[in-house]
Amino acid sequence: MEKKTYPLGSVYRLLEPGPVVLVTTSRRGRANIMTMSWHTMIEFDPPLVGCVISNRNYTFDILNETGECVINIPTVALAEKVVGCGNSSGREVDKFEKFGFTPVAASYIKAPLIDECYASLECKLVDGAMVDKYNLFILEVVKVWIDPAQQHPQTIHHQGEGKFMVAGETIQLPSGMK
Amino acid sequence: MEKKTYPLGSVYRLLEPGPVVLVTTSRRGRANIMTMSWHTMIEFDPPLVGCVISNRNYTFDILNETGECVINIPTVALAEKVVGCGNSSGREVDKFEKFGFTPVAASYIKAPLIDECYASLECKLVDGAMVDKYNLFILEVVKVWIDPAQQHPQTIHHQGEGKFMVAGETIQLPSGMK
Repeated sequence: MEKKTYPLGSVYRLLEPGPVVLVTTSRRGRANIMTMSWHTMIEFDPPLVGCVISNRNYTFDILNETGECVINIPTVALAEKVVGCGNSSGREVDKFEKFGFTPVAASYIKAPLIDECYASLECKLVDGAMVDKYNLFILEVVKVWIDPAQQHPQTIHHQGEGKFMVAGETIQLPSGMK
Repeated sequence: MEKKTYPLGSVYRLLEPGPVVLVTTSRRGRANIMTMSWHTMIEFDPPLVGCVISNRNYTFDILNETGECVINIPTVALAEKVVGCGNSSGREVDKFEKFGFTPVAASYIKAPLIDECYASLECKLVDGAMVDKYNLFILEVVKVWIDPAQQHPQTIHHQGEGKFMVAGETIQLPSGMK
């Protein structure tokens, strides 16, 4: 997929709608993928993102140790693989291999981008003070890749227990809201 | 609108998809409404929600002072009013009056529910330690009201600059994900 860079100041447009994302990490040359829905924008520019990752997840320790991850945004075409990643652990399987995702080298960090996702955000852990109490990681997005061909990506939004809302139409309203 | 109570352990199903919400607060008998999109679930049960509210917003001071708010979830039918709330400040206008929202008394807090929203979450501020650094409020949801008639609420999801994605179809996949 031919990706272009995306302005950091516009990252909120990708995450604010609340899509399910795939978080990639890498440790000692072994990459992993985790499905995540608990995230929020915290600052516009430089973009800060708050992510809640359970300390029971394999990704928790890797992110703590490496301080790096990629937030990849999939569309509905990848829904089954997204659920598959959520139902398995990197402790037992290589998810890139099992689900046929294509790792692509990132620019600033060691964790790979997922080529099949329409957008990928390279992130660095900038504040781990809330990790012990809330499993809350504060990440700074340092580089973004996006497929410019997808103007209306059908992101998926988890409603619990395997139910996902698929992004519908986009409406435009007169707004001063950033 | 005839609302029923909703189990606290299922609150994540309402917020995880990332809808735009209307935050109501009240101080000295005067209620206000703020449009917000920067929120994430932090814990399932008791449900904890992290909300980022700019210190430039009128609601910021009220929430800090009262430690209470209601997170109301609107549908696309209210989109214009939601944007109107986002484009005006409670410092100048009474938003309930200006936009014709109906305040309903909450059970555990002084801030009112918005009757026109399909769901309302009564919240108490339980941790303000991240407010100074990130404008991040940790809220505990103590009571939830929902319209049981709306099985597929068309929530709206902000994409920036007045663009909103409207919730589309729901798909079900075999998942062990909570």
